[in-house]
Amino acid sequence: MSDQGVIPRSEDYAAWYNEVIRRAQLVDYGPVKGTMVIRPYGFALWEHIKEGLDRRFKETGHENAYFPMFIPYSFIQKEAEHVEGFSPELALVTHAGGKELEEPLVVRPTSETIINHMYSKWIQSYRDLPVLINQWVNVVRWELRTRPFLRTSEFLWQEGHTAHATQEEAQEETIRMLNVYADFAINDAAIPVVPGRKSNIEKFAGAVASYTIEAMMGDGKALQSGTSHNLGQNFSKAFDTKFLTTEGGHEYVWQTSWGVSTRMVGGVIMAHGDDKGLILPPRLAPHQAVIVPIWKSDEQKGSVLEMVEKIERSLKDTGLRVKSDTSDQENPGWKFNEYEMRGVPLRIEIGPKDVEKDAVVFARRDRPGKEGKEFGIPSNEAGMRASEWLEDIQKSLLERATQFRDENTTDVENVETFREVIAASRWARVWWSGTDDQERKIKEETGATIRCFPIDQPGGKDSCFYTGEEANKVALFAKAY
Amino acid sequence: MSDQGVIPRSEDYAAWYNEVIRRAQLVDYGPVKGTMVIRPYGFALWEHIKEGLDRRFKETGHENAYFPMFIPYSFIQKEAEHVEGFSPELALVTHAGGKELEEPLVVRPTSETIINHMYSKWIQSYRDLPVLINQWVNVVRWELRTRPFLRTSEFLWQEGHTAHATQEEAQEETIRMLNVYADFAINDAAIPVVPGRKSNIEKFAGAVASYTIEAMMGDGKALQSGTSHNLGQNFSKAFDTKFLTTEGGHEYVWQTSWGVSTRMVGGVIMAHGDDKGLILPPRLAPHQAVIVPIWKSDEQKGSVLEMVEKIERSLKDTGLRVKSDTSDQENPGWKFNEYEMRGVPLRIEIGPKDVEKDAVVFARRDRPGKEGKEFGIPSNEAGMRASEWLEDIQKSLLERATQFRDENTTDVENVETFREVIAASRWARVWWSGTDDQERKIKEETGATIRCFPIDQPGGKDSCFYTGEEANKVALFAKAY
Repeated sequence: MSDQGVIPRSEDYAAWYNEVIRRAQLVDYGPVKGTMVIRPYGFALWEHIKEGLDRRFKETGHENAYFPMFIPYSFIQKEAEHVEGFSPELALVTHAGGKELEEPLVVRPTSETIINHMYSKWIQSYRDLPVLINQWVNVVRWELRTRPFLRTSEFLWQEGHTAHATQEEAQEETIRMLNVYADFAINDAAIPVVPGRKSNIEKFAGAVASYTIEAMMGDGKALQSGTSHNLGQNFSKAFDTKFLTTEGGHEYVWQTSWGVSTRMVGGVIMAHGDDKGLILPPRLAPHQAVIVPIWKSDEQKGSVLEMVEKIERSLKDTGLRVKSDTSDQENPGWKFNEYEMRGVPLRIEIGPKDVEKDAVVFARRDRPGKEGKEFGIPSNEAGMRASEWLEDIQKSLLERATQFRDENTTDVENVETFREVIAASRWARVWWSGTDDQERKIKEETGATIRCFPIDQPGGKDSCFYTGEEANKVALFAKAY
Repeated sequence: MSDQGVIPRSEDYAAWYNEVIRRAQLVDYGPVKGTMVIRPYGFALWEHIKEGLDRRFKETGHENAYFPMFIPYSFIQKEAEHVEGFSPELALVTHAGGKELEEPLVVRPTSETIINHMYSKWIQSYRDLPVLINQWVNVVRWELRTRPFLRTSEFLWQEGHTAHATQEEAQEETIRMLNVYADFAINDAAIPVVPGRKSNIEKFAGAVASYTIEAMMGDGKALQSGTSHNLGQNFSKAFDTKFLTTEGGHEYVWQTSWGVSTRMVGGVIMAHGDDKGLILPPRLAPHQAVIVPIWKSDEQKGSVLEMVEKIERSLKDTGLRVKSDTSDQENPGWKFNEYEMRGVPLRIEIGPKDVEKDAVVFARRDRPGKEGKEFGIPSNEAGMRASEWLEDIQKSLLERATQFRDENTTDVENVETFREVIAASRWARVWWSGTDDQERKIKEETGATIRCFPIDQPGGKDSCFYTGEEANKVALFAKAY
């Protein structure tokens, strides 16, 4: 291993992850245990995730707002399941402005409570509904075992909070946002997530039903990558959020909440990387293309750099995010390795011979060696061709990840096969009629949990792999992050 | 006053502000004292401020990142002036995850300390410099007297933090960002700010020199709307942030920090509003135009709404942010008042007679009555004409604010006139050679502080209005928010 390389992914997946996020300068550890610093390269990835989601939220009629981070402790206690679920993870502000506070303040772990407090003031009548609000904020959950992006005591996310006049509308919204998440994951992140419903014991503390998009990582484990909750009237009853109905009565509003966090960055890294480092999907990559010049003499340098500038301009004019590395502190070989490790989807090489031919060399990150390389691409076609290549890379990453997911998902009919499949870090698709306790027992014995009941069900009935009894739904079991 | 109107600005400026931000649904009070909820209409304004600034930051070579919100208490104590300045306003997390923490955590009031902690790890050599990082985050300063947008215990802002190899580069960066802020304020917010240097007693706790953009509000008071600090080596010495120089030695880095907050939203409201409510500059307005249809019969309604849709599409195609209010719950007169109060720069009226003529009516918010209204604008020109009108409104708002600022700024040569000018809530421009103590005494006696020593100085020397001694610089004094 050179001083540039990373521990190969195929050798030690966990070590590869830790190494690649550090070497690619995505993230660093903060001074307080469990916190992370998101460095510019990692934050640019998050910015593109934000843009892709925010655009979709606005297209589906949502507006952004900001609610305070400090929540009176008494608010958290109003919804029974909510307080039970979040109490162990709370961070408390007890002193401020040099004095002890009368009531401690909770640093938001999520904002259902404070938002309902405000909604109960804003919502009076059916004419005020629906309320469709989202916020992009930091939240704090004090976790014992943390891992950059995947689980940190402070993380960034968006949380949507909506209020509706009917149960049906709330359920429609819950599924609408689940689909928005799936659409983003599939088309922008190139991750073929499985949308589905969470089991009773895995649902959000305070929800009637929780939905999830589950992604398969490169080691076969599942990553819950976004959730959408139907909250029913649980919070509106706790906070007395009522509205005047069209019939003149008063009813509690029906609500949803949904969130995607910086965890998605971890998902992108783990779904696509390879032994050499990151592979970033073009739609999210901070740099979609990197231009690496090659020269020996000073005379060559001048004409090569001229060409670099021309190609950079042509790619930028095409709307692409491109970086030229013209520094002479490192040689081209070092740069090739560096940008491969950083996962830049497309590399453009320009040397003296290319200048002579008025052409450039393209190399795609997702196909190593000669297979992914093309020489003699005319310089005046570089912008257009780069766009086409990036589209193709985006498509190929999704295809590859889909194939990987399908090859590593097994239909399982009995407990023995189930154990084998889970031990091999694959996903098991089973007919399921078990109880909450049986689900817990499986977790204890195998480490696997129900990731979801996929929205896409085969229909009909079959016998449960575990109880042998008749089951009317299929579940996905897997080990998860 | 109808139930729609607001307290006229000319009658009671403070009451007008409180009323208009509530009625226009910009903001609401949070449950914890001193906190605010930024509602969608207010947040959209902030989003456009963010976009305008973020684009300028990236154009000047800066990248975004994210540093943790929790800072070990010991970090804050490392820089002497910094701890003295911020200690009274800190919020402390003492318990987390069900346990008392060994060391309390400070919720960031600003991030110089934690960022230097990281920079001292990242910066080794001159080759790592400059570091040009910004973050968009929430911060907490526990204030006794709060006011939405202007002073709240939690607020949103951006904070840029840069590190350089030389003192000169740090000073250049400080002034570069001051100019970026001034450019944004003048061109996007239509506020003719005065950029200048802060006096010694008004500078940032930990800075060598602080610079500011000062804006005149509608009541003549000043609002500090953005600051840019040259930090020298104060924090790099406290955190041992050193680099290997080109000569092979080791030196502490030279640093800057600069910030603009949600306070800017308050500035936009107070710089441009009038008796009827908000007037929003087109570049920042959530809705740049509102279309109000007018009909009596159902037959009219159909053809009018068809036209509304066509005009909306044409404005959107031109890249404008437009809203059509087609609800039949309120009459057109009510809508006119509502969107005037909300400060929408351009109103487009469409009635049956307009449909007959295939034309629409334009009315601009900044010029009330007939003077600001034009009939018979051909429908196929609506998009283009709306763009032109909005450009002109943007320009007019800046001209009006500039005229107001200049009319309310007086060159003052003696203490008596100074008292009159300050008592009349105007700005006093004076030659100044006083001491820190004399500056404090003036504040006690008149309420005025040195807002800045403008960058744009007349040059030469004259006698100080206060001490009578020779002075080599001009200062702006005013009461301030």
